Amino acid sequence: MTNEQLKQPVTVLGLGFMGTALADAFRRAGHPTTVWTRSNRPGPDGTTAATSAAAAVAASPLVVACVLDYGAVDDVLVGDLAGKTIVNLTTGTPEQAREFAARIAARGARYLDGGIMTEPSGIGDPTSMILFSGSADAYEAHREAFEVLGDARFLGADAGLAALYDTALLGIMYSAMTGYLQATALVGREEVSAVRFTPLAQELLGATAAFLGPIAEQVDSGDHTSRSARLDMQLSAADHLIHAGQVRGVDTTVLEHVKSLMERAVADGHGGSDFGAVIEQLRTV
Amino acid sequence: MTNEQLKQPVTVLGLGFMGTALADAFRRAGHPTTVWTRSNRPGPDGTTAATSAAAAVAASPLVVACVLDYGAVDDVLVGDLAGKTIVNLTTGTPEQAREFAARIAARGARYLDGGIMTEPSGIGDPTSMILFSGSADAYEAHREAFEVLGDARFLGADAGLAALYDTALLGIMYSAMTGYLQATALVGREEVSAVRFTPLAQELLGATAAFLGPIAEQVDSGDHTSRSARLDMQLSAADHLIHAGQVRGVDTTVLEHVKSLMERAVADGHGGSDFGAVIEQLRTV
Repeated sequence: MTNEQLKQPVTVLGLGFMGTALADAFRRAGHPTTVWTRSNRPGPDGTTAATSAAAAVAASPLVVACVLDYGAVDDVLVGDLAGKTIVNLTTGTPEQAREFAARIAARGARYLDGGIMTEPSGIGDPTSMILFSGSADAYEAHREAFEVLGDARFLGADAGLAALYDTALLGIMYSAMTGYLQATALVGREEVSAVRFTPLAQELLGATAAFLGPIAEQVDSGDHTSRSARLDMQLSAADHLIHAGQVRGVDTTVLEHVKSLMERAVADGHGGSDFGAVIEQLRTV
Repeated sequence: MTNEQLKQPVTVLGLGFMGTALADAFRRAGHPTTVWTRSNRPGPDGTTAATSAAAAVAASPLVVACVLDYGAVDDVLVGDLAGKTIVNLTTGTPEQAREFAARIAARGARYLDGGIMTEPSGIGDPTSMILFSGSADAYEAHREAFEVLGDARFLGADAGLAALYDTALLGIMYSAMTGYLQATALVGREEVSAVRFTPLAQELLGATAAFLGPIAEQVDSGDHTSRSARLDMQLSAADHLIHAGQVRGVDTTVLEHVKSLMERAVADGHGGSDFGAVIEQLRTV
């Protein structure tokens, strides 16, 4: 599989940290890789720098854009796109992705929008999640190239899905990381180092992930009847957590908000429900 | 290893959902198991119901209490404790655990405090985290029995550690679960079901866990200099997440708090730091 002749040529537009990592990953996997960036910087060793955006686009049937924003994608996707697959890994909203998909289709190309759930250093790691949505045909045609970048996932024909999932998943990450830092600050008050505490925090996140399966089924069915821990019983645990933080001088804002959501759910008749019932309080309209 | 004669006798005080699960796990593993509860209910099949708390305590060298609160533990731990190992799996604070450890030691027994990081149905599952702290000798003497309950961990000689870790870890779980529900509400606005979204949320929590190792080192060293994603660059991502929730009618309170912590960290000189620098904003005194 190291014979370059068998690999599809790829063009990468944009050579920020992420674009550079993408180009390097394609090149290492044996894809003839053409790069272009507005600043005319050279790409990673072994890639071919095009002399213009149009030349870069023309060079490959698979064109991957990873630039600052959707406006910048418009600037670099110049020339004839007919028959090509355009992959946009630039961060944007689902609405932008859908609007873009329609415009690319009008130019005779297949469109995939993507979300990269890792940092540049994670590109090429088979555990790094890379999300795609849009043309299923385009995804299948280039699946091998996408799998070079990480754990590639096709979410569906709605081009907006990758951006939607990206946003949702990033929200989980920020919530979990803030919870972790709050917990680390708490144990730090009793001279427990972060390095000592963290392996247990990592294991706890794994256990939390395992809880989500049953919750998802309850969310979809709308029947949250408790099969594990009743919300009204959990309220005293939430009080306990907030108290533990407060007496140690640790911010408990997130936990106070969680408790208020639980209280509202209980007041709404969900005392005998599992935690997933809180989702009803998160829908604000 | 199924010969009951080789297994230590165990007494379980308290037959709520959790106490019952503990007694049943010990019994299934071949430990002669004595139980007692104030309501005089029988325990799980194969366990021996004592006629009084004193008789239950006298029956085994290893006595496990799992009752409503620390006051209730006092009520059931009657009679001569000399030479025994007392394990308290009742939920309490680190301060309560330390005070209790001193009183049990004064009665000539070894003391372990514990935190059960699962629900009753998870008892006996080797992946369920069960935390212990207090007498290292007592832990070593009964380690095999504790491992019957799950993934048993000894945290150290300070009896308060199990309760401290329990509180901290539960805080992470609530933060992560609330982030998950917020994300699930968000994708739900675009007709993505919870069951469809959740496998990716689970994978994301695994990826988040992997990020914590480097953050822990930064927290302990106090040097948060960015090696992955600068806080000042992440602010626009946070804005984007909040906007995505607001336009879809999904509560973004947790994310708004996270953003305000990030802004305070940046204002405090941490624009070029990784996310872990936010911990400095969580220490309120």
